Amino acid sequence: MAHKQEVSRAVIQRLPRYHRYLYELRLEGVQRISSQELAERMGLTASQIRQDFNSFGGFGQQGYGYNVQKLLEELSTILGLHGDRTAVLIGVGNLGRALLNNFNFKASGFQLLCSFDIRPELTGQTIGGYTVRNVQELPAFVAHHRPDIAVLTLPRAQVTTLAHELVRQGIRGLWNFTGEDLHLEGLDVPVENVHLSDSLMTLCHLVTQNARRLAGSPS
Amino acid sequence: MAHKQEVSRAVIQRLPRYHRYLYELRLEGVQRISSQELAERMGLTASQIRQDFNSFGGFGQQGYGYNVQKLLEELSTILGLHGDRTAVLIGVGNLGRALLNNFNFKASGFQLLCSFDIRPELTGQTIGGYTVRNVQELPAFVAHHRPDIAVLTLPRAQVTTLAHELVRQGIRGLWNFTGEDLHLEGLDVPVENVHLSDSLMTLCHLVTQNARRLAGSPS
Repeated sequence: MAHKQEVSRAVIQRLPRYHRYLYELRLEGVQRISSQELAERMGLTASQIRQDFNSFGGFGQQGYGYNVQKLLEELSTILGLHGDRTAVLIGVGNLGRALLNNFNFKASGFQLLCSFDIRPELTGQTIGGYTVRNVQELPAFVAHHRPDIAVLTLPRAQVTTLAHELVRQGIRGLWNFTGEDLHLEGLDVPVENVHLSDSLMTLCHLVTQNARRLAGSPS
Repeated sequence: MAHKQEVSRAVIQRLPRYHRYLYELRLEGVQRISSQELAERMGLTASQIRQDFNSFGGFGQQGYGYNVQKLLEELSTILGLHGDRTAVLIGVGNLGRALLNNFNFKASGFQLLCSFDIRPELTGQTIGGYTVRNVQELPAFVAHHRPDIAVLTLPRAQVTTLAHELVRQGIRGLWNFTGEDLHLEGLDVPVENVHLSDSLMTLCHLVTQNARRLAGSPS
């Protein structure tokens, strides 16, 4: 399938969600789904879904729906999930540990190679099945093993300097949990800044809206 | 300011991001910003920004830009950040600990009251300044203190049953980290499902796209 060149960021950010829903559908044994049914499940419109999929060349036949398995494979290819990309994690605090112990990197397209921390007492430990190395070894490790991305779970204060060093050393993407908004677009290195506060503020808004509606409605 | 009744979910989800950028601008001492400048910073279009703000009644004057401080206050009000909402956290594993130790709940509109865990050895400990209670005390605590939301950092297997119990007990929102997609819309209880894998898959796509482009370009 030929992919059109420029796909908007908004569409790209919906792809993992499509992947997630289709993965669940396959687990449920569903073989075929219409854009209408998928839209209802996902809280989107059918025309939105058709438009998104068309931007990648389209996967469905009019009036016949989508083959779940095939669509899932296409999405995996577009997302690059079978690309054997590699990652290192930097900063083995609570969040680092949570990811090392519980997060399925493989399912998101990455093999995690190891983790790094500045504290000597952690060096050589195994957490979540991954060796902790001292951060002093990081440059040599990156030069030798060429990991694609770094997962940044270290304190915010150190992250901007480190990010630029990593990019100089050849890192090709950053998954950034530090709260600092990293922008390396000029360097052509994509960054995913995770802002958990955005999600909690959204919830605050929705809860507040409900409370206001209840307060304003006749009892 | 009168808010229009129905604002789309997409707009609502952009509000925390506006809030975050305006907060940074205020820290930098910027007092006024045009929709064009804000758009460039945020990677949006100026017309998108004007449209979003108009859906709440509009905050700017044509050709004059936005007052950063005033816009930030309006956004805080809309988001309900000053509403003294309360939260409890359930599940003091690595992720729970990471949030208890490092996450600024207050900045997202919530006072965290305490945490709960099933393991008796944690009962009575203080983590991140918050008391850990035994999960057996949860129903009585919810009945007495009426927290607005629950932060779900417990294992996935237990979450659907617990979520419904919490809603019966009066919880008005869920911040769900378990990976299970909770849908309680019929109950009018908003849920923010945090899917970290969506963000990592997006990064996988962007890194893969860059690699494909480099591979395809003349050397």
